[in-house]
Amino acid sequence: MEKIAATDRPIESLLARRWSPRVFDPDRTVSTEELLTCLEAARWSPSCFNEQPWRFLIFDAMVPETLDKARDCLTEGNAWAKQAPVLILPVARKTFTRNNNPNRFAEYDVGAAILSFVLQATALGLFAHQMAGYNTAKARAYFGIPDGFEPQAMVALGYFGSLDALPEAQRSREIAPRTRIPVSEFAFRGGWGQTLT
Amino acid sequence: MEKIAATDRPIESLLARRWSPRVFDPDRTVSTEELLTCLEAARWSPSCFNEQPWRFLIFDAMVPETLDKARDCLTEGNAWAKQAPVLILPVARKTFTRNNNPNRFAEYDVGAAILSFVLQATALGLFAHQMAGYNTAKARAYFGIPDGFEPQAMVALGYFGSLDALPEAQRSREIAPRTRIPVSEFAFRGGWGQTLT
Repeated sequence: MEKIAATDRPIESLLARRWSPRVFDPDRTVSTEELLTCLEAARWSPSCFNEQPWRFLIFDAMVPETLDKARDCLTEGNAWAKQAPVLILPVARKTFTRNNNPNRFAEYDVGAAILSFVLQATALGLFAHQMAGYNTAKARAYFGIPDGFEPQAMVALGYFGSLDALPEAQRSREIAPRTRIPVSEFAFRGGWGQTLT
Repeated sequence: MEKIAATDRPIESLLARRWSPRVFDPDRTVSTEELLTCLEAARWSPSCFNEQPWRFLIFDAMVPETLDKARDCLTEGNAWAKQAPVLILPVARKTFTRNNNPNRFAEYDVGAAILSFVLQATALGLFAHQMAGYNTAKARAYFGIPDGFEPQAMVALGYFGSLDALPEAQRSREIAPRTRIPVSEFAFRGGWGQTLT
């Protein structure tokens, strides 16, 4: 399924095609090679002082008991994500490696890295959906995330599933157009609130 | 100039070509149409609850006095960025619009949006370089950034300049290969420190 952004101007196809579904094919797995390709894309993302503060915890059928645990971290509202064959937890290192000073760009840089990951996934025909709704304390305990590292948004990854089996409300949500505020509301020229054009 | 990432696996060309130079052509301007195209790309980035916490302050020759002020915010180490025809300051809204609760994904989502911006810029033949080194207090005061919004990394944007006029040390830095830690050091399967392959 495609749900291309209704952009006001033409943008790169990869950016327009990226979209976060809630329907994944539980039977179509993602290969380690595909995962490594997406991670390679994340690897070349920019970061403050080239710190590369991103870490990625991957959960899939290769280690099924940890995939079960990752699914167990999801809130009830994200139960749909249990259909995804892969869950990924990006984690941010909060300090610089070289001097242990706080890195105020840690989350910002991890956000860029996961977008690189997701765009590469899009290029491979995969879909990703990032979620705030999961239990971070559980995730820390289950997966041994050390102090000084902060879990970010849980990512469901896989191929698109079928709309047919969905209840009507969920089906409508999946096919509803994507929406955004206009550029004029978030971009200013020269000072806060100053119009760009 | 191209400085394509030496990837361990093939990744999308756009991601491999993105690179942060320190040499911009001061005489080649970036059009408003180009800026709007990059902002349109940022617009379609994903965000927690579709909050879209990103704001962008654009400084260019259309409002020269504010471009001067933005340049004045840069640290001495980033003096090279004064050659860039455009400076951009991404700003994160720290709370959700709907309820004013803290948004722990504000920076993470703005980081993704600026990467979308930068990738679109790359597609247009532009280059961008993000910088931590600027005076945030000055920027707040100069540009009227309200409480509850947090300035992120200042971005230099423009076309690539010429290496010829550079001092040897700076020239060497520009042509040095890009480096990253290997995927095996930042991606784990099933638990912290567990090898992926």
